[in-house]
Amino acid sequence: MYSIGVDIGGMSIKVGVVDRDGSIVKKGKVATDVAGGPHKIINDIADLILSLIDPKDRDFVGIGIGCPGAINSATGVVDRAFNLKWHKVALAEELSRRINKRIKVSNDANVAALGEAMYGVGRTYTDTIFLTLGTGVGGGIVLNGKLYEGNESKGAELGHMVLVVDGEPCTCGRNGCMEAYCSATALIRETKNAMLADKQSSMWGFVGGDIEKVDGRVAFECSKSGDKSANAVVDYFVKYLGEGMLNFANIFRPQAIILGGGVCAQGDYLIYKLKDYCKDRNYGFANTPRFDILVAQLGNDAGIIGAAGLILSELR
Amino acid sequence: MYSIGVDIGGMSIKVGVVDRDGSIVKKGKVATDVAGGPHKIINDIADLILSLIDPKDRDFVGIGIGCPGAINSATGVVDRAFNLKWHKVALAEELSRRINKRIKVSNDANVAALGEAMYGVGRTYTDTIFLTLGTGVGGGIVLNGKLYEGNESKGAELGHMVLVVDGEPCTCGRNGCMEAYCSATALIRETKNAMLADKQSSMWGFVGGDIEKVDGRVAFECSKSGDKSANAVVDYFVKYLGEGMLNFANIFRPQAIILGGGVCAQGDYLIYKLKDYCKDRNYGFANTPRFDILVAQLGNDAGIIGAAGLILSELR
Repeated sequence: MYSIGVDIGGMSIKVGVVDRDGSIVKKGKVATDVAGGPHKIINDIADLILSLIDPKDRDFVGIGIGCPGAINSATGVVDRAFNLKWHKVALAEELSRRINKRIKVSNDANVAALGEAMYGVGRTYTDTIFLTLGTGVGGGIVLNGKLYEGNESKGAELGHMVLVVDGEPCTCGRNGCMEAYCSATALIRETKNAMLADKQSSMWGFVGGDIEKVDGRVAFECSKSGDKSANAVVDYFVKYLGEGMLNFANIFRPQAIILGGGVCAQGDYLIYKLKDYCKDRNYGFANTPRFDILVAQLGNDAGIIGAAGLILSELR
Repeated sequence: MYSIGVDIGGMSIKVGVVDRDGSIVKKGKVATDVAGGPHKIINDIADLILSLIDPKDRDFVGIGIGCPGAINSATGVVDRAFNLKWHKVALAEELSRRINKRIKVSNDANVAALGEAMYGVGRTYTDTIFLTLGTGVGGGIVLNGKLYEGNESKGAELGHMVLVVDGEPCTCGRNGCMEAYCSATALIRETKNAMLADKQSSMWGFVGGDIEKVDGRVAFECSKSGDKSANAVVDYFVKYLGEGMLNFANIFRPQAIILGGGVCAQGDYLIYKLKDYCKDRNYGFANTPRFDILVAQLGNDAGIIGAAGLILSELR
C-alpha cells in the first residue's frame, strides 16, 4: 500500500511514494512555477506524480498534500497562500481531474506534525504538539493519533498565541505573539541587539565583524564558550519558548512537545535548557503528568512523509 | 432515560435527576462535610441519590460527577482537591459500591463547559471553548461535541495560559497567567488600585467609601455612568480577556467562546466590548472563520446538568 506525499514549498515541490511504514520508496522534485499560476503548478504536480507511480496500481491509495497558507482541509481548497500568490484555489478538485484518487490537503506545519507523530520522534505517543521554529513559528496538534486542525482547519496557529500583551510586533497584526519571541527571526533580532549593546562580545568575532551575517546559531555557539551577552540571548529564547510550551502543556497536557526548524540543530544543548526551565513550572506538579521535549527527526523529508500520512492515518 | 448529575462544591453538594433533554426533573442538596472526610461525603452523595431515584429503575443509566481539583476521568480518581482536602480519592469506585451504575467524574469547569455545549447557549455548535471567570479562571474545551480533557484529563487549564511573561503573580506559581488578569479577583485588584489612584472616582461613592466592599460589579457599573478611572479598569479587563480569547481562537478556531461566572452578569455591556476588541484582531481575517462570544445560560444548575452530560453524551 502506497500513498503519494506532496510537499509544496515556495521554491520547489517535492513528491514521494510512501509506504505504510512511512518510508519513501521513490521521490522527485520540480521547481515551483509561481509565475505560471495555480493551474500550471497543479499540472506540474500531476506530471511528477504520474512519473513516479501508475494511477492504475491498486496499491496506490491516495494523495496527501502539505501546502503553506490557509487551507480548508474539508474541501481541499487553498483559501490563501501568500508565497504562492494563491487565493481560493480548489487544489484537491483540480488535481483529481488529472488523477482520480482520494486527495487530502492540509497546512504544511500540520503535515509536519502528523509526520513526526506517525513516523518520527513522536511515534510512540498518542498526543503531541509540534512547533517549528523558523522564519515564523508554525504549529501542529495531534490528539489521539489524529491531526487536530480546528474549525475549517484554521486552528493550530500555535505561533500566534500572545505571550506578552503589548509586546513585540508580530506579522499577524497583534503584538507579543510567540512567533515574535521564539522564531529564528526573533532570535536573530535579539542576537543583533545584544551585539550592539556589547561591542566586546565574542559574537562579533564569530560573524567576522559583520552583523548582517548573524544567524540563529551565533548566540548558541558563543554561549557554549561562555560569552555573557550570548548567554543572555539564549536564556531569553529559552524562557519565552519554555513559557509558550508550558501554556500548551496546560491546555493539552500532551505526552510530548516536538520541536522542529533550524534552531533545533542545537539539539541537547537547547533541550536540556528547556527541560530545566519547564521542570518546576509544570501546573499541578506531582498530580499532573509531565511532557517530554523532543527534536523532530524526519528532516527534509518531513513534508513528504507527513503529507502521505494524511491518507495513511485514515487507513490505520 | 435519566442520568444523575452530581455537583460537588466546597460548601454544598447538589444532585439532580436529569433527562435526555438536559432538564432537571428532581433535585436535592446536602452540605459538604469536609471535616467528615471523603468516605462520609461519598456516603452522603449515595444517600442523596437514592432519595431521588430507585437504582433498579431501568431508565437510570448512570451517574456523572463534577468535582473541583485535579481529576483523572479515566479512572474516576480525584488526585487532588484542595478545598475538599482530598488526595487520591477513588470517588467512582467507592460510590459504585453503594450504587452499581456507570459513573464518570470530571473537573467542575469541564463539566460546566459540557453542560453549556450540550444543553445551554452552545447547543447549536459543535466546537466551543468555555471560560468561567470567578475567583480563578476555569476552562473547558468541547470538540466535535465531546469534552476534550487532555492526557490523564489534566489539560484544559485555560486560566493558566501566560499572557504576560513576568507579569502579575498567579496562584499556580507562574507569573502572568490569564487568571491573574481575567478573574474576578484580578478585576477587584485593578478596581481597588484605580480607586486608590483616583480619590475623586465615583467608585468610592458606589461602595460607600469602603474599599473592602469592592466586588466585580463596581468598575462596570461606574463605567456605565462615564467614570474615567472605572472605564480604564473595564478597558484593561476587556483587553486581557480579549487577548486570551484570541489566543484560544488561534489554537482551536472554535465556533463560539462561552463565558460564565459572576462577571458575566454584565451581559451585553461586556460582550459588545469584547466583540469590538476581537473583531480586527482575528488571525487571517477574511480567510478565517470568526467566533461568537456568548454568555453561559444554565446558571446555578450548570454543574448538575453538565455532570449528567458526562453520561448522556455517551448515549447520543
